[in-house]
Amino acid sequence: MSSDSLVRQHRTATATLTVTGGGVPLDGQEVVVAQRDHAFLFGCTGLDSVTHAAGQPESATPEAVASEAVASGAGSDVPAGGGTARSERMGELWLDLFNFATLPFYWGWFEPERGRPDTRRLQAAARWFTDRGCLVKGHPLAWHTESAQWLTELSNAEITEAQLDRIRREVTDFAGLIDTWDVINEVVIMPIFDKYDNGLTRICRELGRIPLVRTVFDAAREANPRATLLLNDFDMSAAYECLIEGVLEAGIRIDALGLQSHMHQGYWGEEKTLGIIDRFARYGLPIHFTETTLLSGHLMPADIVDLNDYQIPEWPSTPEGEERQADEVVRHYRTLLSHPSVRASTYWGMVDGGWLGAPGGFVRADGTPKPSYHALRTLVRDEWWLAPTTLGTDERGRVGFTGFLGEYEVSAGGRTATFRLDQPGPATLTVEL
Amino acid sequence: MSSDSLVRQHRTATATLTVTGGGVPLDGQEVVVAQRDHAFLFGCTGLDSVTHAAGQPESATPEAVASEAVASGAGSDVPAGGGTARSERMGELWLDLFNFATLPFYWGWFEPERGRPDTRRLQAAARWFTDRGCLVKGHPLAWHTESAQWLTELSNAEITEAQLDRIRREVTDFAGLIDTWDVINEVVIMPIFDKYDNGLTRICRELGRIPLVRTVFDAAREANPRATLLLNDFDMSAAYECLIEGVLEAGIRIDALGLQSHMHQGYWGEEKTLGIIDRFARYGLPIHFTETTLLSGHLMPADIVDLNDYQIPEWPSTPEGEERQADEVVRHYRTLLSHPSVRASTYWGMVDGGWLGAPGGFVRADGTPKPSYHALRTLVRDEWWLAPTTLGTDERGRVGFTGFLGEYEVSAGGRTATFRLDQPGPATLTVEL
Repeated sequence: MSSDSLVRQHRTATATLTVTGGGVPLDGQEVVVAQRDHAFLFGCTGLDSVTHAAGQPESATPEAVASEAVASGAGSDVPAGGGTARSERMGELWLDLFNFATLPFYWGWFEPERGRPDTRRLQAAARWFTDRGCLVKGHPLAWHTESAQWLTELSNAEITEAQLDRIRREVTDFAGLIDTWDVINEVVIMPIFDKYDNGLTRICRELGRIPLVRTVFDAAREANPRATLLLNDFDMSAAYECLIEGVLEAGIRIDALGLQSHMHQGYWGEEKTLGIIDRFARYGLPIHFTETTLLSGHLMPADIVDLNDYQIPEWPSTPEGEERQADEVVRHYRTLLSHPSVRASTYWGMVDGGWLGAPGGFVRADGTPKPSYHALRTLVRDEWWLAPTTLGTDERGRVGFTGFLGEYEVSAGGRTATFRLDQPGPATLTVEL
Repeated sequence: MSSDSLVRQHRTATATLTVTGGGVPLDGQEVVVAQRDHAFLFGCTGLDSVTHAAGQPESATPEAVASEAVASGAGSDVPAGGGTARSERMGELWLDLFNFATLPFYWGWFEPERGRPDTRRLQAAARWFTDRGCLVKGHPLAWHTESAQWLTELSNAEITEAQLDRIRREVTDFAGLIDTWDVINEVVIMPIFDKYDNGLTRICRELGRIPLVRTVFDAAREANPRATLLLNDFDMSAAYECLIEGVLEAGIRIDALGLQSHMHQGYWGEEKTLGIIDRFARYGLPIHFTETTLLSGHLMPADIVDLNDYQIPEWPSTPEGEERQADEVVRHYRTLLSHPSVRASTYWGMVDGGWLGAPGGFVRADGTPKPSYHALRTLVRDEWWLAPTTLGTDERGRVGFTGFLGEYEVSAGGRTATFRLDQPGPATLTVEL
């Protein structure tokens, strides 16, 4: 079956919708049906590393920061204080593609000085997204990279306690705003990571991978029992499978599996992507593609093992690269939606100039959208989207239509009601206007 | 500390031995102390794949086969019927280096036709080694490669039952002769192995890695509670770590970890080897290097992923290669013995012409020993060995000496007694002559 047919099979419902008024079917009337949101989580980072790393003045109000939350990748040339035309434009571009934001909780950034967490600023950023109907994920609660430097002055028992306190604090402080968390990141390599000393590698090495996963998941679960908790890794080999099997066999509840997919060294292609999804779908858990990058410039050489090792002064986006990226973005998203296990796909940086300075955005550094932006928008808001459509109800007040899973509204005579299509296949609903 | 000092620290005891006669210390006497065996398991395959694959006539008696058990690698040019001068010579060479034999239990060879296992022939081979004081290991009880073809005609439940029956049968039939087993081989890749269909990949995929490991270990343990049971893998990455952690976390008892180390693409070197040992030593289990190969010819190209894919008509041993191999063999064994966790090292084929036709033996195809043979013999029987040594007892009947861990004898006045040195460091013993 073509990927297109599979997308339709797994992602659309054929609805028979009965429209009533005062409990009575409205027969022979014109109604307008329109999609409002996708069930699939089209995600993107919502507050880019560059903006963050460039530093916010201590005096910036949460509101000012929030208004910049979506000016992702623009870096230090965005004046703090918010409300610039560019910020607003980036926000519009972001919201026109995405419904799912990943916000940065790297411990070393979030709490560089022990006891002074960056809570208010991140709450404001999260609120900016939730106010606009987006789901927000926090990334990550535990990771050996970008962990707090001050941990290395503690004993292993103290590091573990600080890590658990940190998880309880963030998950509690953000409950309601952020109920989805990458609880722990890159556990496969964590205990043998040897680039530099850090607190997380120390405790993972002492406790073992599975006990550490258990303890951090327990802390997060206890702080917010409603939360969706992810295990996330870049290692797509059998190592991550073995880790997952060990974790599940140990009775630890994981709500979704995060698969990173930075493709700085080239698009994986449909076959490899589906092979990976199939291997991780075996566990019956929803799959999130958590960190996707596709370049619109030259590729990183294949012999680079740790992507962080590739540092060049300039990495330009090129016209040919932008055409290739647009094509690959369409193929990648079509592949992901063709597999029923994939629940989310998060793109890593809407605007160029983020991680590694790579031209991986859908928007150039000058703020203009690339072909990839338009290509993904065509999928999300056109090919996979039901624009407002006028239909006539039959003698029993019914209209029939096929739409992508998500949130819908139906309107007639100045009244509007909403409903959801959550399962693929036939759906029978009644909506009171 | 130098590897040499570490070898001495972890592998030798400094003994104070009191020699008595009728319970009275024999003071001022000359005694001869001599080592009889190593505690370290210097292993080698004991019945090579080539001999086996070449096929034994159905009519060959177990005794005939046994006499060929050590003519490893000689292939079909060794006439069945045993007792040839070459077989005897190979046996002598083998026993002069090794005290630990690995015998092949590949299911597809051992029971090509269901219900007709090759039990008697393998029992005879095992007995040949045990009669000569060697420990024998069976390899492997469960593996997706070389598994029985007829499994693919069964349902998954039937495959699982056949696998468990097979384990119980072999472990029971060989108890006393073989009490050490590679229970399951290469579990990391097992469920995703995609070169060809086979029964083991099917059940591993359905059950999951850890439940399959549990069920095969349970069967082996139940059949022979005294047995030493190994998990064995070629994957030296974090994947095997994650598998081991999951298995241990699930409460499955593993007696030793098997690490393959086929080095057809080049000697690992001390740093990589010690790095691997350190990573797997974290689990507190004895480590067996189960399958070591070092070539005395050209190396396999680095871009070959599955070693089985490299098939060439001739792969000669060369003079330069033989010098290099001798050097690497010494460095490799010295590295292994310098780490206290390593309990065994099994070389994969004493004679050239075994697996892949590679010149990986210590003995050329024409039966003459290479420099590597002599180099390892110098370690095993000279540098790490206490040859018969005459010592005089003191006024309390004591002699002192330092020796490598293992079995010893002491003789005086025509009488001989044996004792063991099992722990490194100071040892105080009394032996009655």
